[in-house]
Amino acid sequence: MSLNSIFQYFVPKDQKIFFPLFEQAANNVVTMATVLVEAVNSNNLATREELFKQIDKLEHKGDEITHQIYLELGKNFITPFDREDIHALASAVDDVADNIQGSANRMLLYRVEELSDPMLKLSDLVLQAVNDLEKAIRELKDLKNVRAIADSCIRINSVENQADYIFDRAVADLFLYEKDALKVIKHKEILSALETATDMCEDAANVMESILVKNA
Amino acid sequence: MSLNSIFQYFVPKDQKIFFPLFEQAANNVVTMATVLVEAVNSNNLATREELFKQIDKLEHKGDEITHQIYLELGKNFITPFDREDIHALASAVDDVADNIQGSANRMLLYRVEELSDPMLKLSDLVLQAVNDLEKAIRELKDLKNVRAIADSCIRINSVENQADYIFDRAVADLFLYEKDALKVIKHKEILSALETATDMCEDAANVMESILVKNA
Amino acid sequence: MSLNSIFQYFVPKDQKIFFPLFEQAANNVVTMATVLVEAVNSNNLATREELFKQIDKLEHKGDEITHQIYLELGKNFITPFDREDIHALASAVDDVADNIQGSANRMLLYRVEELSDPMLKLSDLVLQAVNDLEKAIRELKDLKNVRAIADSCIRINSVENQADYIFDRAVADLFLYEKDALKVIKHKEILSALETATDMCEDAANVMESILVKNA
Repeated sequence: MSLNSIFQYFVPKDQKIFFPLFEQAANNVVTMATVLVEAVNSNNLATREELFKQIDKLEHKGDEITHQIYLELGKNFITPFDREDIHALASAVDDVADNIQGSANRMLLYRVEELSDPMLKLSDLVLQAVNDLEKAIRELKDLKNVRAIADSCIRINSVENQADYIFDRAVADLFLYEKDALKVIKHKEILSALETATDMCEDAANVMESILVKNA
Repeated sequence: MSLNSIFQYFVPKDQKIFFPLFEQAANNVVTMATVLVEAVNSNNLATREELFKQIDKLEHKGDEITHQIYLELGKNFITPFDREDIHALASAVDDVADNIQGSANRMLLYRVEELSDPMLKLSDLVLQAVNDLEKAIRELKDLKNVRAIADSCIRINSVENQADYIFDRAVADLFLYEKDALKVIKHKEILSALETATDMCEDAANVMESILVKNA
Repeated sequence: MSLNSIFQYFVPKDQKIFFPLFEQAANNVVTMATVLVEAVNSNNLATREELFKQIDKLEHKGDEITHQIYLELGKNFITPFDREDIHALASAVDDVADNIQGSANRMLLYRVEELSDPMLKLSDLVLQAVNDLEKAIRELKDLKNVRAIADSCIRINSVENQADYIFDRAVADLFLYEKDALKVIKHKEILSALETATDMCEDAANVMESILVKNA
């Protein structure tokens, strides 16, 4: 129980600062995942490389938004939710961005040009998860539509389970059918970054569920 | 310094909610580790697979208990210990379960049928560590037997050190004597999940030590 | 907003306990990184092994300092900064030590005797980062020289970016030019521990930046 939770009953919440920043951060990861899906579905390697560079720039933009949230957190005595939840949510969204960029970066640096079916599927799942992440974050502002937030969180959990399953099977298949150990390692690293991006969406969903419970 | 720590002097602690949940969670990882040790010592592959599936179900059960603790944490104004310690302890026990299940899952998915001596030894150490974890969690309830909790924590730390040593040596030996790179990767992944399970027991022990100091 | 932040206006800060411990911890990682740089630049394998053993001992010493900080945190009602920042800073410095020791341990255990250029460069960057870490930690005591702390944090961030870049390129080069998969794995593990050491310095810098903002 923080002082916030007491103060919030008689001090107006200064939500104007945090919500737009969270929406920008969520919006940014949606753009990143959209560009990622476009890139992995493109067979033109030059186009794909161009898109990967866009992801890189978007990740830097995301870093600045996260940094801004941390700065505001330090400056603001009163926060709309518990400070640790604001920090954890910003940090989870940042981790989503890092892992989207990380997967693109590995495809590029390791010169993995023939992308596998599990990589495409996982990229789709990442996009699904961040779409729900953005929806839920938009609703956090007034907490009127609690049902919508909870539903998005449930869908993110389900997407993360699917991503886990696809990752585990893909790695098992690499071990069973791919004899080139270096290719196994490279593919495993790329799949792992994609799967971790959905894990980080789940982390963000867990924070939002905890905010819902505290503010019910 | 949270408000809890002040309130606890004049508000009765509502411990009835959290302790049984923690005991269930601890009990569940003891069952998981017991089944794991049975599985890795079984030479009948069908039996082993059956036991691995039991571990899977137990992990889901553990997830539900963890989720329940988080829900109660959101709902309860007064907690027996600092909120962050309750969260950290629940999360550490959940990570133990995840890594036991992860190691079993990898043995199964990667079709590693000939288990190595370090895998058996690490499984034994995981069981030793969770046995002490359960003992310590049982004693948290009334904090009468502080010595017993501290002793369990010390034994968990010692088990984690042994696991570290076995893991490091096993990986070094794989690099020195195993020429099949794919086998090295598969074995390393399994050993790593087992070793991480003991790390997570140590995390739980660290939380309990910090609870002891605060409530001394 | 913790109670600390209110109490600090009328209760004398008991800083005498925490600052010397943090300085000892920072000093210890500087010694570790100095010995690491000496070791990786030595071509005499016996000397190098001797230096690696020194790193091992220093890591144990660091563990004790961290443990001491946690104990004091449990015992002290009033802390100079928010409790979570003290915990996070101690834990980040401990993670720096773990990863320096981890990289040395892997070079030794995996019998990687010919160290690569990126390993030497990353070791240098680790030393640069911990030097700034120590500088910043020394200045935390009175917060008079806020500019110096902020500058150290900025330099740590820049070093971490350079380390990221060197790590990514080194792993990409291993995949492109090294055909021995086992050697790729071993080198990647060593490079990864070195790069993670700079990540952990950045974590520590983030905590210090947050302390600056709160106490501005």
